[in-house]
Amino acid sequence: MAKSFEACGVITLTTDFGYEGPFVATMKGRILMRFPAARIIDVTHEILVHWPAEAGFWLARSWPYFPDGTVHAAVVDPGVGTRREIIMVATDRHLFLAPDNGLLAPVIARLPSAVIHRLAPHALERFGFGAPSATFHGRDIFAPLAAELAAGRCQPSDLGEETKEFVPAWVEEPAVFGEAVRGVVITIDHFGNLITNIDQELLRRFTRPIVHAGNHRLMLHRTYGDVRPGDYLALINSFGVVEIARAEQSAAEGLGLERGAPVSITQG
Amino acid sequence: MAKSFEACGVITLTTDFGYEGPFVATMKGRILMRFPAARIIDVTHEILVHWPAEAGFWLARSWPYFPDGTVHAAVVDPGVGTRREIIMVATDRHLFLAPDNGLLAPVIARLPSAVIHRLAPHALERFGFGAPSATFHGRDIFAPLAAELAAGRCQPSDLGEETKEFVPAWVEEPAVFGEAVRGVVITIDHFGNLITNIDQELLRRFTRPIVHAGNHRLMLHRTYGDVRPGDYLALINSFGVVEIARAEQSAAEGLGLERGAPVSITQG
Amino acid sequence: MAKSFEACGVITLTTDFGYEGPFVATMKGRILMRFPAARIIDVTHEILVHWPAEAGFWLARSWPYFPDGTVHAAVVDPGVGTRREIIMVATDRHLFLAPDNGLLAPVIARLPSAVIHRLAPHALERFGFGAPSATFHGRDIFAPLAAELAAGRCQPSDLGEETKEFVPAWVEEPAVFGEAVRGVVITIDHFGNLITNIDQELLRRFTRPIVHAGNHRLMLHRTYGDVRPGDYLALINSFGVVEIARAEQSAAEGLGLERGAPVSITQG
Repeated sequence: MAKSFEACGVITLTTDFGYEGPFVATMKGRILMRFPAARIIDVTHEILVHWPAEAGFWLARSWPYFPDGTVHAAVVDPGVGTRREIIMVATDRHLFLAPDNGLLAPVIARLPSAVIHRLAPHALERFGFGAPSATFHGRDIFAPLAAELAAGRCQPSDLGEETKEFVPAWVEEPAVFGEAVRGVVITIDHFGNLITNIDQELLRRFTRPIVHAGNHRLMLHRTYGDVRPGDYLALINSFGVVEIARAEQSAAEGLGLERGAPVSITQG
Repeated sequence: MAKSFEACGVITLTTDFGYEGPFVATMKGRILMRFPAARIIDVTHEILVHWPAEAGFWLARSWPYFPDGTVHAAVVDPGVGTRREIIMVATDRHLFLAPDNGLLAPVIARLPSAVIHRLAPHALERFGFGAPSATFHGRDIFAPLAAELAAGRCQPSDLGEETKEFVPAWVEEPAVFGEAVRGVVITIDHFGNLITNIDQELLRRFTRPIVHAGNHRLMLHRTYGDVRPGDYLALINSFGVVEIARAEQSAAEGLGLERGAPVSITQG
Repeated sequence: MAKSFEACGVITLTTDFGYEGPFVATMKGRILMRFPAARIIDVTHEILVHWPAEAGFWLARSWPYFPDGTVHAAVVDPGVGTRREIIMVATDRHLFLAPDNGLLAPVIARLPSAVIHRLAPHALERFGFGAPSATFHGRDIFAPLAAELAAGRCQPSDLGEETKEFVPAWVEEPAVFGEAVRGVVITIDHFGNLITNIDQELLRRFTRPIVHAGNHRLMLHRTYGDVRPGDYLALINSFGVVEIARAEQSAAEGLGLERGAPVSITQG
């Protein structure tokens, strides 16, 4: 049995809503209506539309950089208003809230001590959230629920049964095939760096790893400034995964690669 | 006579300034200089440049999702520095602040109990805001004024005369023409959904409404997942207006429609 | 000897990280981990990638609009992980923190009373920040350091030696050549206004200044509404520099000019 989650009042938001219109803002408004002292951090609202994989990837790697007691609400939800459920994944230090659509699978895979609860259909009635719209559960369910949890007024165990089942990830975890480790480009940052889902632990088997992407074979370096401007390189980035970069330029543009592109690593 | 507005310390900002440069940030800086405890929510800064209609549309539909006592400052202001005035629109629970250029007309139309005050030319002198620049009243007038109002240090009635006159809306409210209700696409969200200014109340006259946009005739559905990916649909969205969508794709791209495009509804 | 910097708890962030991914968010998370009461303002994260000149330009013009006691952290850092140092520039009222790569040179040029300290290699050990990654000092060094300074727990003089040396600016300050003042377009705002680095003080020598940019000769006006829609104009903008605009349209698109484009001013 896990210890209770102890909220610190911080809530993070991760969505594919973008910055047009009042979508994120009305989530924040509903949070402050219930919990005026909430401190809200936007993780990003530029998740690729309808691709929960990217949201789960980033949450699984970025949660250690938020305070203990943070509630993380992630809403990338192509099935909003249909029969999809909501899960809460918690350790004693971090709590994640998302549609049960595979988004949180990478978080669960990296937090073996986490306990999962499935939101019960009638659990929210006591809070008086009002009837949710059919198309915006971020504002009508996730925001006020995050507020209640972050205010310390309830625990996931108050809101539904514990479960071991959840919708699996949209993108398989990288794996070893023969001599190679295979993964994919899971996201692209503002600089055009191609960020893969291959954790550095998977590289321990290689004394001299070579990264293959597109038609390129790249050596691992420590940082961008270790090669000449315009040169491609691979590196273990600041979130502990393999990244393909181009010094002072965009690797994504230069290589023409997109999210989902295969990347493999072999012994050099 | 309306009851006084009771401020709760929350300020929302709605502009067409975008996220480049320190424009929004210096508004926030000036707010915190006068009211360090302010909690500021960005509604959006991606209003179509110089189109107050979109800002007014969103404020008129989103204010119920912010706490009672919120001050809403909206600055879409092509006439900045010329002779345009500033109005304050208040109920006892929400206060709106904008150039008198038609921006707040949709808010006023939906808040019959609101009282309008026109900012008097010398009303701000007592606050010591300093001389405003000719081109950035958002930072030099709206931000510090929002701070004073949100801090509860003044009421609109302290700052100018009550008025019934204001510049009318940029876009006419939808109306009934013969058998049809006619409105326009007023905004497009990050998913490419085309959002009209047609409130759901206007559909009560139809037992089987058909939505016409571009060359398409669309049936009303409840949510995106009710049709197959790629199919077009119409629905009443989470802000209570008619929306034209394409399941898991962008209706705006697919139909080639922009803000201002006509939309009509007839009996099927 | 300068008086000590007195922190007020506000931190501003200026980067070229954009809004994709959790880069800015994890900086905020690390700030709140050390200083839960911090109030954080995003200046902008849309600085042109790898161009510190734009960040320095904006900080040098926008700091007066933030409260006394603000800590400004700016991270535009193409040399991250290589041997570049970190400087802190402080008056008694504002403190700036950035890589020593020329970013802060425009700030230093305008704050003659400011004192510069160079972060000592081992100064951070006592704080227990952990080993920094090679590629994300914004999160691993600048954010927690800004938190310590903004919480008032240390002064720049506790963290390294005072210095008079720093890497010079990426873009030279405008200067007088014969009869002309010459500068460049240093940034472009969301409206497409071309903003130069030419401060209004440099125009005092002219009774009738003419602004030259591209093939255009422009008169100075007071505000956008002083010319007809579609007409070009020059003006002294709200940050006190020469700006080239097109009424209700984008001057950048219309003139085809980019950052770095030369602008000169002569007597008309």
